[in-house]
Amino acid sequence: MPYRAPIAEFEFLLTHVAGFDRVSAQDRYAEATPDTVRALLTEAGRICEEVLAPLNKVGDRNPTRLENGVVRTPPGYAEGYRAMVEAGMTAISAHPDHGGLGLPITVTACVNDMAGAACLALQMNPLMTQGQIEALEHHASEAIKALYLPRLTSGDWSSTMNLTEPQAGSDVGALTTKAEPSGDGTYRITGQKIYISWGDNDFTGNVVHLVLARLEGAPKGTKGISLFLVPKLIPDAQGNPGVANSLKVVSLEHKLGLHGSPTCVMQYDGATGWLVGEENRGMAAMFTMMNNARLGVALHGVSIADAATQAAVAYAAGRKQGQPLIAGGTGTILDHADVRRMLMEMKAETFAARALALDLAVSIDLGHAGDAAEAARAAILTPIAKAYGTEMGLKVANIGIQVHGGMGFIEDTGVAQFARDVRVAAIYEGTNGIQAMDLVGRKMADGGAAIHALVDAVEAEAQALAMGAPVAAMADSLRAATDAIVAMDLNDRFGGAVPYLMGFARVLGALYHLRAAAAGDGARAALARFYIDRLLPEAQGFFTQARLGAAGLYDLSPDDLAA
Amino acid sequence: MPYRAPIAEFEFLLTHVAGFDRVSAQDRYAEATPDTVRALLTEAGRICEEVLAPLNKVGDRNPTRLENGVVRTPPGYAEGYRAMVEAGMTAISAHPDHGGLGLPITVTACVNDMAGAACLALQMNPLMTQGQIEALEHHASEAIKALYLPRLTSGDWSSTMNLTEPQAGSDVGALTTKAEPSGDGTYRITGQKIYISWGDNDFTGNVVHLVLARLEGAPKGTKGISLFLVPKLIPDAQGNPGVANSLKVVSLEHKLGLHGSPTCVMQYDGATGWLVGEENRGMAAMFTMMNNARLGVALHGVSIADAATQAAVAYAAGRKQGQPLIAGGTGTILDHADVRRMLMEMKAETFAARALALDLAVSIDLGHAGDAAEAARAAILTPIAKAYGTEMGLKVANIGIQVHGGMGFIEDTGVAQFARDVRVAAIYEGTNGIQAMDLVGRKMADGGAAIHALVDAVEAEAQALAMGAPVAAMADSLRAATDAIVAMDLNDRFGGAVPYLMGFARVLGALYHLRAAAAGDGARAALARFYIDRLLPEAQGFFTQARLGAAGLYDLSPDDLAA
Repeated sequence: MPYRAPIAEFEFLLTHVAGFDRVSAQDRYAEATPDTVRALLTEAGRICEEVLAPLNKVGDRNPTRLENGVVRTPPGYAEGYRAMVEAGMTAISAHPDHGGLGLPITVTACVNDMAGAACLALQMNPLMTQGQIEALEHHASEAIKALYLPRLTSGDWSSTMNLTEPQAGSDVGALTTKAEPSGDGTYRITGQKIYISWGDNDFTGNVVHLVLARLEGAPKGTKGISLFLVPKLIPDAQGNPGVANSLKVVSLEHKLGLHGSPTCVMQYDGATGWLVGEENRGMAAMFTMMNNARLGVALHGVSIADAATQAAVAYAAGRKQGQPLIAGGTGTILDHADVRRMLMEMKAETFAARALALDLAVSIDLGHAGDAAEAARAAILTPIAKAYGTEMGLKVANIGIQVHGGMGFIEDTGVAQFARDVRVAAIYEGTNGIQAMDLVGRKMADGGAAIHALVDAVEAEAQALAMGAPVAAMADSLRAATDAIVAMDLNDRFGGAVPYLMGFARVLGALYHLRAAAAGDGARAALARFYIDRLLPEAQGFFTQARLGAAGLYDLSPDDLAA
Repeated sequence: MPYRAPIAEFEFLLTHVAGFDRVSAQDRYAEATPDTVRALLTEAGRICEEVLAPLNKVGDRNPTRLENGVVRTPPGYAEGYRAMVEAGMTAISAHPDHGGLGLPITVTACVNDMAGAACLALQMNPLMTQGQIEALEHHASEAIKALYLPRLTSGDWSSTMNLTEPQAGSDVGALTTKAEPSGDGTYRITGQKIYISWGDNDFTGNVVHLVLARLEGAPKGTKGISLFLVPKLIPDAQGNPGVANSLKVVSLEHKLGLHGSPTCVMQYDGATGWLVGEENRGMAAMFTMMNNARLGVALHGVSIADAATQAAVAYAAGRKQGQPLIAGGTGTILDHADVRRMLMEMKAETFAARALALDLAVSIDLGHAGDAAEAARAAILTPIAKAYGTEMGLKVANIGIQVHGGMGFIEDTGVAQFARDVRVAAIYEGTNGIQAMDLVGRKMADGGAAIHALVDAVEAEAQALAMGAPVAAMADSLRAATDAIVAMDLNDRFGGAVPYLMGFARVLGALYHLRAAAAGDGARAALARFYIDRLLPEAQGFFTQARLGAAGLYDLSPDDLAA
């Protein structure tokens, strides 16, 4: 079935759930009027429905290939990319000084949500560029900004981020790629990077790599990592792509999903690079890009959850039964209580994951406008949104296959692709385990004060809303679990981190449903009731696990595990 | 990493958890001595490790193809099949009168578990034959038995089951394939069947189809369905494969997984068939085959869960970190509490799912030996084992990908294939939703008496075992949920059926862990503690959902769902 851009859903969420009015009230975002936002989302939605969605299966069936060192993208990808650029979908939140629209991240989030649902493999490309633009805006020299940003915001050039090496995945500090000063202010970069999304393509005039590397004599671990900008083609004095840099795509990975998106092994052989930010402070700059990308990846989960839900509802409504099973039934499998349960769960989870991502986006925007409390709130919500959004992407795509029965296992149906494509979202930009460790580690370094403030606000708001009592009660359990975790040593925190994060997300999801129920029609209230009655109680089990810390987790020896 | 057959695990489970001694105490199974069983499992395990496991990736990469109407299987499949046959792996439980070994279904279950872990796509082939043998033993005429059974038990011929049609999936009663008497005692079968696993191959001398079809004037629905045996090649008077029957493979499906197993669209054009059982009683005969297959599919989940766990443990133990994270650590990612949590969960779920499947197998065997109470118990356990086993297959394979990080998304690693292959197990042989509806419908037709008996036994046993108090308490919650469901009308039962089944499985899983802890070493106790402390509490949320019935599930209109 065709993808349908959920414009009305965004408007409802922005207005009644995510509090976007607080963003548009900022001077900085004065141009983000309802009319402007609606016009932009509507045009982007049209591109997603008409241009990008038809490319999704094409890219899956015709993976991007490497031919004699040249990356060849699937048929139509170049045109799809161009359409995104022309509709202004790729640099919505970039600064107007360099050709961006200067609109809030929240607007970018809605557009990325749609583009990811339509064709996730292709949307990965501008997502990388968006993150790099933000990193360069914050950390690069004026010369680099002047040269690169206009060409990135225009979509003429695209971007990558290079962290991982074969021996250094989540353990970034173990990377060994070398940077040596050339004496002319540039550096020579040498090493191999893996899992580089869109490491090359055949539709942008240049590819700009941000590469983490280590200077000679730098401290060990993450405190000795610097960040370098390494273009595929070195720009000449006029900024035109010039001579080829000493780098290449060695190979592409054969992946479970995202076949259209080239996942590259990159080789840098003394490639010319420019330092971004200060020496040995590369992680800080890269985190700007990664935090942006974490919201982007949270939305990958939301995108696929939405696409999978749309497909499952359409299939169920069209799948005839011999006879109506219930009074007033449709004569389709929609009559089945278990099918209804699955579809309600898909919709309820998709709504909650999307609301959380947009809530995070609003806090990021308010933080950018100078509100430190909102920036702190965004720091807490980032790992939760990333892990919950992507888990729900996996879960909802999986339920979607189940709704289709045998058809779901057949690739032609298209819903298996959703499950394949979204699988890596729980892994890249920091695995969901890493997100949870961030939440119970760094994000509790204040002794839990910021989380307490957030939970207090949730509880107070829930108490004031219809159906809110069980949500407030679960917020209280969340607070107690938080206190228990704060009292633990780090490894115990880590043992319960993932369940804690999932329980936290359940409480937030319930709050968003309460807001929707209060502002919306009977269907909103019914979906909220479903989430609160059937899904929220899971949180108690999660908190039980969280409070156990690492107790018992090491009771099996490595040999016992292998037995 | 190579697959390792878990012979010692089977011996522990058979002895201490599944009560296999009750089976071998039956006269009927006098030959199933520990030595015989061990010898058979050991040889089968060797075949699985050395012959079948290396074929798993081969079949995934080189899917079975249809060339000019001929099915071409992956390289090595023919040899793999022959090795299984020669090791006696394909007809372990068939009656000795027709060339079977006459050993318990429980032994077949262990062998199928290993073969499925080694190469699930190929193991599907003898699984179909095993089911057909049992159906023919119970329902076919002496002439059919004498002609077909020796050739099926020898592995010279293989089998299929043909239920589904494009408009008739879970709604089997809607099928329209026609059967017309030919006047000579045979019938002409005409119609199209889909999703026919191993509808043809290039390594057995004949393929014997069991086909559900409808005689002219037969009652509507499932009460008007008859079962026919339709061979690919019609045997001559000596039983040699003779002239080709009027049937063909129209096409093969392009599937998410199980690429080596041909999933066929079969066309029957007045094909010659023989009635099996009575006219219009085909569903009863087919259910013999399906119940056998439901245990077999439960084991698909167990197989993949085991293979995924073995791979994840080996990967984690070999994935170096820069430095040990904990005192006495290994310097690998095994040091991470979250990695330990994931591996413990994989092992705890795999153990519980396997124990449930073997417990079911033992009850089936005792039922076959004449124990009506055990047969009734098997009827209850069948849908639970099928749904829980396959859900755990999906879940454990998914966690396994997560343990591998980025490597998990790369197809070369092999663990994505586990997740792809096992996905359909939750769908075929009756979706897990259908299993749950069977549990709360047909299996509660006695007002819940049989389930009460089972739950009472669980509670009493748990109370007597160390760590058993929370298990006994949850059994009490299960009983209360059962009573609540029995009091509901059918559609309300169906609304809570899947959560009820999953909660039921959690209680059973906990009991098996208690038995293991009581009989085993400290590692068994630690795994039991993990399951009881961290996973069992989920059941409470499941029972909460179950008790809600269908409340609220229809509050969204079809338009609301599509909005």
